[in-house]
Amino acid sequence: MNLFQSRTVLKQAVNSHLLERYKMTEAHMTYGDWTLAQRGFDQRFLGKTEAIMTQGNGYLGIRAAEDERYTGEIRDTFVAGTFNAFDENEVTELPNMPDFLGLDFALNGERFTLAKGDVSDYIKELNLQNGVLTRSFTWTYKAIKLGVVFRRFVAKNDRHFLASQVNLTNLAAEPLHVSAKTGINGQTTNSGSQHFTDGVKGLVENKYLQMAPQTTHSKIDVVLTLETTVANANILKARAEMDRRAIFMNHDFDIPAGESVALERRATIYTSIDNDIANRSLTNLQKIAIDALKSKEAASFDDLIQESQEAWDAVWNVHPITITSQNAEDQLAIRFATYHLHTMTPSHDNRMNIGAKGLSGEGYKGHTFWDTEIFMLPYFIFTHPEIAKSLVTYRYLGLDGAHKKAASNHYQGAQYPWEAAWPTEGEVTPVWGAVDIVTGQSMKIWSGFIEQHITSDVAFGIKQYIDVTGDSEFAREKGYEILLDTAKFWLSRLEYNSELGLYEINDVIGADEYKEHINNNAYTNYTASWNIDYAIYLIKNLMNTRSETYYALDAKFNLKVLLEELEEKLPRIFLPQPTIDGVIPQDDSYLSKKIIDISKYKTADGVDGLFHDYNLEQVNAMQITKQADVLLLLLLFEGLFDKELKLKNFEYYEPKTTHDSSLSLSTHAILSADLGKMDQAYDFFTRAKSIDMGAYMKSSDAGIHAASLGGIWQMTVLGFGGVRMIDGKLRIEPHLPEAWERLEFGFTYQGEDISVTVSHDFVSVDKENNGNDVAFLHKGKSYILQHTLQLSLKEGNS
Amino acid sequence: MNLFQSRTVLKQAVNSHLLERYKMTEAHMTYGDWTLAQRGFDQRFLGKTEAIMTQGNGYLGIRAAEDERYTGEIRDTFVAGTFNAFDENEVTELPNMPDFLGLDFALNGERFTLAKGDVSDYIKELNLQNGVLTRSFTWTYKAIKLGVVFRRFVAKNDRHFLASQVNLTNLAAEPLHVSAKTGINGQTTNSGSQHFTDGVKGLVENKYLQMAPQTTHSKIDVVLTLETTVANANILKARAEMDRRAIFMNHDFDIPAGESVALERRATIYTSIDNDIANRSLTNLQKIAIDALKSKEAASFDDLIQESQEAWDAVWNVHPITITSQNAEDQLAIRFATYHLHTMTPSHDNRMNIGAKGLSGEGYKGHTFWDTEIFMLPYFIFTHPEIAKSLVTYRYLGLDGAHKKAASNHYQGAQYPWEAAWPTEGEVTPVWGAVDIVTGQSMKIWSGFIEQHITSDVAFGIKQYIDVTGDSEFAREKGYEILLDTAKFWLSRLEYNSELGLYEINDVIGADEYKEHINNNAYTNYTASWNIDYAIYLIKNLMNTRSETYYALDAKFNLKVLLEELEEKLPRIFLPQPTIDGVIPQDDSYLSKKIIDISKYKTADGVDGLFHDYNLEQVNAMQITKQADVLLLLLLFEGLFDKELKLKNFEYYEPKTTHDSSLSLSTHAILSADLGKMDQAYDFFTRAKSIDMGAYMKSSDAGIHAASLGGIWQMTVLGFGGVRMIDGKLRIEPHLPEAWERLEFGFTYQGEDISVTVSHDFVSVDKENNGNDVAFLHKGKSYILQHTLQLSLKEGNS
Repeated sequence: MNLFQSRTVLKQAVNSHLLERYKMTEAHMTYGDWTLAQRGFDQRFLGKTEAIMTQGNGYLGIRAAEDERYTGEIRDTFVAGTFNAFDENEVTELPNMPDFLGLDFALNGERFTLAKGDVSDYIKELNLQNGVLTRSFTWTYKAIKLGVVFRRFVAKNDRHFLASQVNLTNLAAEPLHVSAKTGINGQTTNSGSQHFTDGVKGLVENKYLQMAPQTTHSKIDVVLTLETTVANANILKARAEMDRRAIFMNHDFDIPAGESVALERRATIYTSIDNDIANRSLTNLQKIAIDALKSKEAASFDDLIQESQEAWDAVWNVHPITITSQNAEDQLAIRFATYHLHTMTPSHDNRMNIGAKGLSGEGYKGHTFWDTEIFMLPYFIFTHPEIAKSLVTYRYLGLDGAHKKAASNHYQGAQYPWEAAWPTEGEVTPVWGAVDIVTGQSMKIWSGFIEQHITSDVAFGIKQYIDVTGDSEFAREKGYEILLDTAKFWLSRLEYNSELGLYEINDVIGADEYKEHINNNAYTNYTASWNIDYAIYLIKNLMNTRSETYYALDAKFNLKVLLEELEEKLPRIFLPQPTIDGVIPQDDSYLSKKIIDISKYKTADGVDGLFHDYNLEQVNAMQITKQADVLLLLLLFEGLFDKELKLKNFEYYEPKTTHDSSLSLSTHAILSADLGKMDQAYDFFTRAKSIDMGAYMKSSDAGIHAASLGGIWQMTVLGFGGVRMIDGKLRIEPHLPEAWERLEFGFTYQGEDISVTVSHDFVSVDKENNGNDVAFLHKGKSYILQHTLQLSLKEGNS
Repeated sequence: MNLFQSRTVLKQAVNSHLLERYKMTEAHMTYGDWTLAQRGFDQRFLGKTEAIMTQGNGYLGIRAAEDERYTGEIRDTFVAGTFNAFDENEVTELPNMPDFLGLDFALNGERFTLAKGDVSDYIKELNLQNGVLTRSFTWTYKAIKLGVVFRRFVAKNDRHFLASQVNLTNLAAEPLHVSAKTGINGQTTNSGSQHFTDGVKGLVENKYLQMAPQTTHSKIDVVLTLETTVANANILKARAEMDRRAIFMNHDFDIPAGESVALERRATIYTSIDNDIANRSLTNLQKIAIDALKSKEAASFDDLIQESQEAWDAVWNVHPITITSQNAEDQLAIRFATYHLHTMTPSHDNRMNIGAKGLSGEGYKGHTFWDTEIFMLPYFIFTHPEIAKSLVTYRYLGLDGAHKKAASNHYQGAQYPWEAAWPTEGEVTPVWGAVDIVTGQSMKIWSGFIEQHITSDVAFGIKQYIDVTGDSEFAREKGYEILLDTAKFWLSRLEYNSELGLYEINDVIGADEYKEHINNNAYTNYTASWNIDYAIYLIKNLMNTRSETYYALDAKFNLKVLLEELEEKLPRIFLPQPTIDGVIPQDDSYLSKKIIDISKYKTADGVDGLFHDYNLEQVNAMQITKQADVLLLLLLFEGLFDKELKLKNFEYYEPKTTHDSSLSLSTHAILSADLGKMDQAYDFFTRAKSIDMGAYMKSSDAGIHAASLGGIWQMTVLGFGGVRMIDGKLRIEPHLPEAWERLEFGFTYQGEDISVTVSHDFVSVDKENNGNDVAFLHKGKSYILQHTLQLSLKEGNS
């Protein structure tokens, strides 16, 4: 396994050397109802708030790097979908755009930096409700005493727009001379890899800085435009300045004692792949960009925040979740998750999907993984079906890429890429990783070849989308095709073991990435089998309809022949069966490996304690699981397994699971809630919510953990709220943890908006009384919801 | 003229916005016999010492960026000749290599930076004699009190090698915990442009960090290898770490109270264009690199300095210059110039030449200009003929490129590129500059097209080389060909004005770059005429010899036909004649332009005061000269003009010359010395020596001014020392400024080493009494030097 490219160990490499530096810091996190804040500045922990306070609107994502620059910062600006490969040796990645937000101040000729002087009342705060980032403090240095308030936001109502304001109050007795240098700085890179040409740049109408670089290989034009104004100031001098890949505006002004000056920046980004612009010629984009800034000139900074706030309100008004908990941060966690899910998701364009780090860091290159279908898509399916539709349509647009991947591996059908970028590109997992630092050998990254469960994960997501939304048009036009094409892949993938008379799936990586090149991974085999099984069901149903859809798909697949093969192979797919102790083997060899006590690694602050004692090869030879594998299977396909078996497997695998992946805790949380282990479930919830939001200052450097944020919603609504879509049937079966007094949430089911209120004693389910009945299950019984239903949650009552 | 790419204004753009910040600083320069030092640290002025304390050996050049990193630093490592173009829109440039010298310290968990804490006794000092850079200070922060001494050098005896040592002394009463992160960091760029692939990297033999990136287009392999050791320490942990484009070694250790620990780094660079390596396969380079480090492991850091010192001694022993001056810095200036001339000059490989900023910055992309022939080559011709030979051979290797340029402009012969990189590339001046920040229009950089005097400058340099060294082999095999080929270019370049019956050279930029698209620039026309005149002389001489050389050149040029054309055109070349006031017009229109008093701009600290009041177009319309133009002509071709005319022109042009180019003051200094204006000459000398070495902290950010450093030697030896090679005759006619009591220097003339001692009263000229007589002129009289001659310098005596 490649030490530096695989998904786990990359994170470990980051944490490992920094862990010991994290001892104590003046910087620490505090939490409000809608806000999270860092109090105190510490240059060692820039990455934390840069990532978790990332602002965005799905089109644009900007890490919350400080305006004034620091060594060690990661200053990233991303626009969804603008993928480019650095060279032929590298895969495509989301390029770091030129930066708008750097700001160099000289105050009475002194360079302003928090590294020197006295900094008091430092607060960096993100307001999740309106997406505004505020940074305020008082800076005292020599004779300078300055009150500083920075505010910035990425407009939720206008995907192309962002703005920043800094208010400077001269708290000293003497006038203060300020030189401020702002601009568009394209000297930014992805850790040294430059994705853009230098591009034309200039000052338009003596007022707007504009730069138009182009991605070097994908040839996407980007137009960046910035307007800088200084209010309440006697401007001594304003002067444009150009550098390589950069264009700046210098403002010189004085602030009399006791007075304030506001410097404001407004910026837009447009690209030649924007789907909201008809004429995407460079000259038109340049013109549109200026017009957009002009159209906002009458609006104040606060007016603009208000407009963005209203767009955020529309998000918050969709099925708001209220958690009445002993721990106020539980409520904040769901808001934090919701904020980021909307910040990172390119809902505006179905050619784009969610990156594993959203738009908050260079980690995983902006690529889309199974994280979308298994961890984030459920949120959108249940609450924003139109966004879910865009996300599943991305997979439909990805069929060509999936065919390409299957063909290149000598398989048939649609084999989805482990990592996906532009949908038609196909597989973009790096093939070769860096050289192993110890052996000096170049190591192959296997995930792109053998982590194959992604294909059934995609199919699973499509099925969930169709079942929950009832979007039969999508099903007919796109969804069924994916479900058949993925099944066709699995048919070609199965390997016949003539000795056993069974079909196996050998040499894979399962959900647990600590085990490479294993045979018959339970999660992989079961989900592949389900994929085939469901395709059979689908074909038979379609045959009965003799619909247009049937004929269209028949022309593509020859359904009769396909059905025969599916039916021939399905019963002979090897599905790992429980041992005499009721344990489903994670794979053929797992249960024969050595068992050690890993409890001490599960309490470490970081994730890599294990690797201080063992190397990856040793871990591979032990019963150590990085993340939910068998347990994820038991959760997603709960109907296949009884409760006793789940309990046995939970008790077997949980002590062996390190949760080194951020994709793990939420599964264990929901499953343990299902099993009635509410204290444990709440403990998982608490740990999961802390991955990004918590006090540990180093966990998010490479970006937020998108799947984990989807997991927060899933733990809340699917776990404690007990909502589940199993075998095409809705179930609502809440169970609150002790710390929660009440949970209110909602979701949209086949077009009907349903509200749920849960206490320890009862659950109330409500919808508009519009004649559309909704059937659901609760503790094994069927209910029909017309308007409102209240069910007792006390044991013995139902 | 392009505001941001032309040679002047780039510098101005840099200085302009920084000028006002330069008010007062705790950081200031101090000077010793062999050392220059910055006392006090100020993050605003990183560029000054980064550039002027650049270390190198002609192969390798490393800016003296601080080990611990700062925002605003420019951390450059260059290897001569490794040119690469970022993309098809950009010209080739010298790429910034991965960095060896960055060092992150955490001390008791605190990030070490001079931006915080108390820094006392800060000295950053370059020793010119041995090339060692030392940085020492005491840092106090919270309970930490640490004595720090950094030392580093680039080996003069082994072009591939550099080393750095930091000595940490714990001055506090408690033990100090140190975490040190060193490595090879390839996230460096040229202001955002990345020239390398990520490349393989790893830890070899569990000890050596190695990285092998490749330039993206020119496909040059680079192998960087680093060995880090910690002496006198109880190493708690040593751990390799890999990142994108980077590989690091982390050392953790404790320093007991009162004790010291030394951390040492030794590194090598090899490339696939190295001419000292036979097998340049990547694997062999990787092996050689490790072997080279191993071969030095027995040697201590001081041993290695000693070896490098010995190679520097060899430089200092060649014609050492001793200046006995009232101002000790005069002596230092010549050492500073000599140091840099050897640091920046790729004497090891005749496919390479000197960049306008040496190897000390990204300015001018590492390209070679006329600066070499007119400003730096004389130093090497007179003192290191073997290096001079390499530099003129570069021009011979550049003939193909010069033919290509001539052909593309529809001319014949060899038209040398205004900017040159790899010799066969031809012209590499950027064709299009950035957009004008005000007009928004893309502006053409005209120098590459119409600054054509470079071709006669090259010819002039060749002629000087042959005359001074007497290298007749070079002359026959290479030099004559260049002299004829350049003359052939001028023939094709001349434009016949049938009205006047004269050949003109219109639409050029002369030496003075403030005047674009002018006709009949005096410097250009006279030097072109000389080039043709000399070719005629040469052909006639060759014809008489009927030598092999003659036949070889005849085959190439058809000498008879060429001679006819040369002779036909020469007498009709328009050579601007003096006005009635004895002023040679700089060009056809100069003297009719408006005259303003520019004296106030000549005293400004920076160079751009003029542009605060006028724009370039306005400057173009006035009699303002950026740099010596007519006066340079009068200096280089002194035999063509009498003293009175020189005086009149000096008095006319000097008040109109801003000396905004660093190529200007030395010419005025030498010319005014020739004219007996010794006070003025010394004033020019003093100003010229301050360009890089002086107190102004912003002048060298983009790199040192290579031509200006050549100028320091020329002012000393050719100016005050009075050595000149005119029309093939040596002249020695010293004249010391008042401040100098005595000047001792030497040079090599046609294989004979000549020493000169000058006082105000006499000059003594000495050589070995070996039977080889040397003829020279002095005050119009011929002398024959056999062994020693002493001549009086008193007026009236000779």
